[in-house]
Amino acid sequence: MKIIESDFQAWMGDIQARTEVALARLLPPAPMAPARLHEAMRYATLEGGKRVRPLLVFAAGEVAGAAPERLEVVACAVELLHAYSLVHDDLPCMDNDVLRRGKPTVHVEFDEATALLAGDALQSAAFQLLADHRLADDPGAQLGMVKTLAVAAGSRGMAGGQQIDLESTGKARTLPELEFMHIHKTGALIRAAVTLAAACGRVDSNERNSLDRYAKAMGLAFQVVDDVLDYDGSTGTLGRTAGKDSRQRKPTYVSALGLPGARELAGELRAEALAALEGLGGRARRLAQLADFIVLRKF
Amino acid sequence: MKIIESDFQAWMGDIQARTEVALARLLPPAPMAPARLHEAMRYATLEGGKRVRPLLVFAAGEVAGAAPERLEVVACAVELLHAYSLVHDDLPCMDNDVLRRGKPTVHVEFDEATALLAGDALQSAAFQLLADHRLADDPGAQLGMVKTLAVAAGSRGMAGGQQIDLESTGKARTLPELEFMHIHKTGALIRAAVTLAAACGRVDSNERNSLDRYAKAMGLAFQVVDDVLDYDGSTGTLGRTAGKDSRQRKPTYVSALGLPGARELAGELRAEALAALEGLGGRARRLAQLADFIVLRKF
Repeated sequence: MKIIESDFQAWMGDIQARTEVALARLLPPAPMAPARLHEAMRYATLEGGKRVRPLLVFAAGEVAGAAPERLEVVACAVELLHAYSLVHDDLPCMDNDVLRRGKPTVHVEFDEATALLAGDALQSAAFQLLADHRLADDPGAQLGMVKTLAVAAGSRGMAGGQQIDLESTGKARTLPELEFMHIHKTGALIRAAVTLAAACGRVDSNERNSLDRYAKAMGLAFQVVDDVLDYDGSTGTLGRTAGKDSRQRKPTYVSALGLPGARELAGELRAEALAALEGLGGRARRLAQLADFIVLRKF
Repeated sequence: MKIIESDFQAWMGDIQARTEVALARLLPPAPMAPARLHEAMRYATLEGGKRVRPLLVFAAGEVAGAAPERLEVVACAVELLHAYSLVHDDLPCMDNDVLRRGKPTVHVEFDEATALLAGDALQSAAFQLLADHRLADDPGAQLGMVKTLAVAAGSRGMAGGQQIDLESTGKARTLPELEFMHIHKTGALIRAAVTLAAACGRVDSNERNSLDRYAKAMGLAFQVVDDVLDYDGSTGTLGRTAGKDSRQRKPTYVSALGLPGARELAGELRAEALAALEGLGGRARRLAQLADFIVLRKF
């Protein structure tokens, strides 16, 4: 067990480092005009986060036998979209947060207008990456990848989830309502990460369904654990402001189910994710380890 | 001359109506959840504007012999990106404007957070359109179209131009600096509109260069005329707040060249645009008429 864990830690460290290097290379250089915008885009993206979505991309890519050079681009595109959503989510008119990944948020470090534009430009950059590198054998299939990412980002995906979140402040939500919100807000991009990784290689329809079932469970599990940590964790460990959900009177899995209930749900979703991987064999090893990592993490 | 004008007016009315119908069909329906977000996206996009970019798409499409069904999708994608940029540009942290196209701006009619998300989702929707319809004979060429739009929207295009604009407030700018700003802020999307239209059909490299030269001149001409109208027009005629450039202490072509100088420059750019069309023959008729319309407009 120890050996498996240390092997997973090493793999995770490799992917995180590889993603960091690729993002630094693929983002516009900081001195390039307009420099302040490019600095803000890099500040928002580099040296930050657990890189959960890139980890999912590379882990799912193993199932599909996809080339790492392709997965790297997909990982960066998904991470740019994620970074843009955090920058906009932190703005005063949204969550008005000042701390992210242990650093001042982009609008605090720069200014609101620059943060707005940096988020906007990060979204464009994500689509540019998907169009600018060869990611699938068939260009038609690659166009399908662009569509997958656009749908996941848009009004029926991540942005839509944010809107539902916005309208939830101060309201009690039933479990199905919470689930609907998070399937969009967090789940859509996590599912897209797995779908896009699979599209870089080859999967049959059974494998595709298994991967999607896994990704759906993980998208929700991730949010449930986030809610538990926000309730239970400290700002220092999290690198972001702890306890903000309850201060902002947002419905969470903890407010809906209580702390033990939320923890139990996280465990069930982990079991569901692992069950989805049955039949994929050893190629799904990293996905299984990631499920454990995401559910058992402390930050 | 009268006949040509009334023929152009009819053509313009047709394209504007066609674009309106297509946008209404391609945007998510207002009752679909999250309804408030979809209402805001539709409010930002429908019943508004001169549709200059769609007009350019259809006019350039005639040169390339492109199918109207393809041009319609491209026109909508470009217009969605344009609408998103206006929504974000009007936000309090940017230009803080309350009036657009004769109506309250999106953050006034809805709220700031919804306006932010509506802009974000409109950008995603633009890329979804380009990936979701067959727009070129070769899917590889269509991927190139996605890249063209992403570059035009991003930090080296429209968003970058906004950043330069932001940093220009209260500063004197030389003519080359003003030009650099507008080539990005307005020019990039106008050039993309023409490039994408050409990609829907067939053009040789000479024709492509002619179209791009035309689009570059028109992108600048459009902005010069905008500055003149902002200085010289009334809020009622414009449907947006007049005189805001000088109140916001923004450098404009009028502040750099004076009113007569700015008018003269607009005339020169029109001549340059028309010169670029020489050699394209009768198929460029609409582009020539559009050059006149854009430079001679009063709103």
